[in-house]
Amino acid sequence: MSKEKKTAMCLSQRALAMQASPIRRLVPLADAARQRGTHIYHLNIGQPDIATPRDIMDAIRNFGEEVLAYGPSQGLPALRQEIKKYLERQDIMVSADDVLVTTAGSEAIIFAMMAIGDPGDEILVPEPFYTNYNGFATMAGMKIVPVPTDVEEGFALPSKAEFVKRITDRTKAIMYCSPNNPTGALFSRKDLEMLAGLAQEKNLWLLADEVYREFTYDGGYHTSVLHIPGVEDRAIMMDSISKRFSACGARVGCVVCRNTEIMQTMLKFGQARLCPPTIEQVGAIAGYQNIDKYLKKMITEYQRRRDVVCEELAKIPGAIFKKPAGAFYIMPHLPIDDSDKFAQWMLTDFSHEGATTMVAPGDGFYATPGQGKQEVRLAYVLNEGDLRKALKVLAKGIEAYNRRK
Amino acid sequence: MSKEKKTAMCLSQRALAMQASPIRRLVPLADAARQRGTHIYHLNIGQPDIATPRDIMDAIRNFGEEVLAYGPSQGLPALRQEIKKYLERQDIMVSADDVLVTTAGSEAIIFAMMAIGDPGDEILVPEPFYTNYNGFATMAGMKIVPVPTDVEEGFALPSKAEFVKRITDRTKAIMYCSPNNPTGALFSRKDLEMLAGLAQEKNLWLLADEVYREFTYDGGYHTSVLHIPGVEDRAIMMDSISKRFSACGARVGCVVCRNTEIMQTMLKFGQARLCPPTIEQVGAIAGYQNIDKYLKKMITEYQRRRDVVCEELAKIPGAIFKKPAGAFYIMPHLPIDDSDKFAQWMLTDFSHEGATTMVAPGDGFYATPGQGKQEVRLAYVLNEGDLRKALKVLAKGIEAYNRRK
Repeated sequence: MSKEKKTAMCLSQRALAMQASPIRRLVPLADAARQRGTHIYHLNIGQPDIATPRDIMDAIRNFGEEVLAYGPSQGLPALRQEIKKYLERQDIMVSADDVLVTTAGSEAIIFAMMAIGDPGDEILVPEPFYTNYNGFATMAGMKIVPVPTDVEEGFALPSKAEFVKRITDRTKAIMYCSPNNPTGALFSRKDLEMLAGLAQEKNLWLLADEVYREFTYDGGYHTSVLHIPGVEDRAIMMDSISKRFSACGARVGCVVCRNTEIMQTMLKFGQARLCPPTIEQVGAIAGYQNIDKYLKKMITEYQRRRDVVCEELAKIPGAIFKKPAGAFYIMPHLPIDDSDKFAQWMLTDFSHEGATTMVAPGDGFYATPGQGKQEVRLAYVLNEGDLRKALKVLAKGIEAYNRRK
Repeated sequence: MSKEKKTAMCLSQRALAMQASPIRRLVPLADAARQRGTHIYHLNIGQPDIATPRDIMDAIRNFGEEVLAYGPSQGLPALRQEIKKYLERQDIMVSADDVLVTTAGSEAIIFAMMAIGDPGDEILVPEPFYTNYNGFATMAGMKIVPVPTDVEEGFALPSKAEFVKRITDRTKAIMYCSPNNPTGALFSRKDLEMLAGLAQEKNLWLLADEVYREFTYDGGYHTSVLHIPGVEDRAIMMDSISKRFSACGARVGCVVCRNTEIMQTMLKFGQARLCPPTIEQVGAIAGYQNIDKYLKKMITEYQRRRDVVCEELAKIPGAIFKKPAGAFYIMPHLPIDDSDKFAQWMLTDFSHEGATTMVAPGDGFYATPGQGKQEVRLAYVLNEGDLRKALKVLAKGIEAYNRRK
């Protein structure tokens, strides 16, 4: 058989380049621990324990159509209208035509990336960043160029110079997430104005992942990319109901942009996949209509949890972190040699009073090799009591890990 | 501003290459016709009018979890198990691990394409083909290479030689759909054995879109790519519940393959997008558990509709078609100069007794320029009475269209 024949049926380079999920690859180890009878505190994944609002569940249960039919590729008109109104209440003025409903935030990111870049093109992203940006970029054949931030500075946005020196003739966009997954950092209006100015100066797209928009603490205000004047044509906001409504399984998100040309383009991707899930959009409509009923309570709850995590982390000798201002993550530097090994060891070799704690190793959130080895991401998605126990178990784990031979 | 700056913020080549949906672009014209009070018989889109099975809707309404949480990236284990059992009943032996649940058939196709090919790689597809293959290939940077079929031969599978002469060193796969959208052709076991032999000989992947698997008439048997021995490592089957359960809005599909390496690869794409919609998977489980209750009745109904369409088409002078053996589409050659113009004209300029008929222009299903101009795709997704009226209106429309100056 000739060489060319041999290469025809193989995996694509793109497939080989796909990173296996650094969080999900610990799952078999967790399963084994559970089978041994160990209780696992899950701080490893952003799956809130908070109940999905009743209004959403009721709307889903009351879905009355006889045929579960295709919806419009743009999303249900009523949902696009509710999203427009929801944004209006945050002083973001857009029309329903500026809203394209997507199958969760994941698809919003994929559509945005594919609309602005071709294989080989680059996107600047403050690092550490949400792991799956890598996966989406790989699917699109594009490259994430990391711009480092530092735990000692609370993962504050890098300076303009740090972005500028990484811009090449393949750079198409700056992308960021605020409030940030995985760090909890909240970028200020001034930060965003710097990014917006840079995007204008270098003629780049500006992509904002605002999935955690409401998750700000101590009265902190979230500035949207859509609040910044001068970048109306280049600002693309990516969103999801997953966290806001504790509805991760719904797979309803959206992309919002005032540039009609790029919206038309993303709609073509949307038409190819026909439509987002219908019933869960009906649920989302009810969520947006009733958002004021529970959002404040939920944020108060998360702020308390953040305080608990920080209190407990402060007791761990050698832990370095700043109190995060948003999202529901914190990414402390811990006195460990290798967070990947540590996360595995916690599942395979450790328990304290019958329990262990599962964390997300820091290196999975970095594109720069060697970075994040002493960091872990903790998602504070457990109730206060469990969270306190989980952190105590983590502290005991660190001690034992460092005592082991 | 320098030239290089000007090019940074622009649409991607991929975005520019995306075809606007040839069916959906007629929608504004249909809206306007409706506003004028014209009734529209929709034969243009594969949205069945048949009620989604009660079991599915009940399962959705009875969803009892408090938190609408992320599911596994592979899909719910219970659903994968039901799909395995469903395939077993059709003599397709796979394990639940060979099943990856996707966000509808669309995602199944995207994952399969991205796993097997890189930008510039080619996939051979019998033409005409499902329009959105083009869109998915464009998103993946890949190229669909059409292999022509002919209305006069009922769009039968092309000969081996026709495939062979289009194979280049960039060819990665042969992809086909049977029962076929848009033609209704059903490929025989012998056809598939030819394709399988060719795939082995040339070391290509073999991708089968089997979304219409049950939609076969006159006792015709659907052979799955997974039935064919010798291609276990290279056969990838893509599926969806959309048509089978008249649940197009559910967005639940799957990809089935016995090659664990490619399954692991596709799972990495799946992990990046986290999971398919949870509640609608719960609905799908109930659908598969109760499929025997209504499938036979549904197929009998579609067979009757097909007969009605063929009866009425036979009365149109100059119409050329063969009675299709599967799916719920037919793609007749009609005595018109340009199916795109004709489809528009039917919406903008024609009505008969207050009604018109909306069809999908044939050229949208061809990659070869100039092809399909005298063909339209009709989806027989209306009840018998309406279908007969829709075809009579179509016949009157063709007469009037050809009489116009």
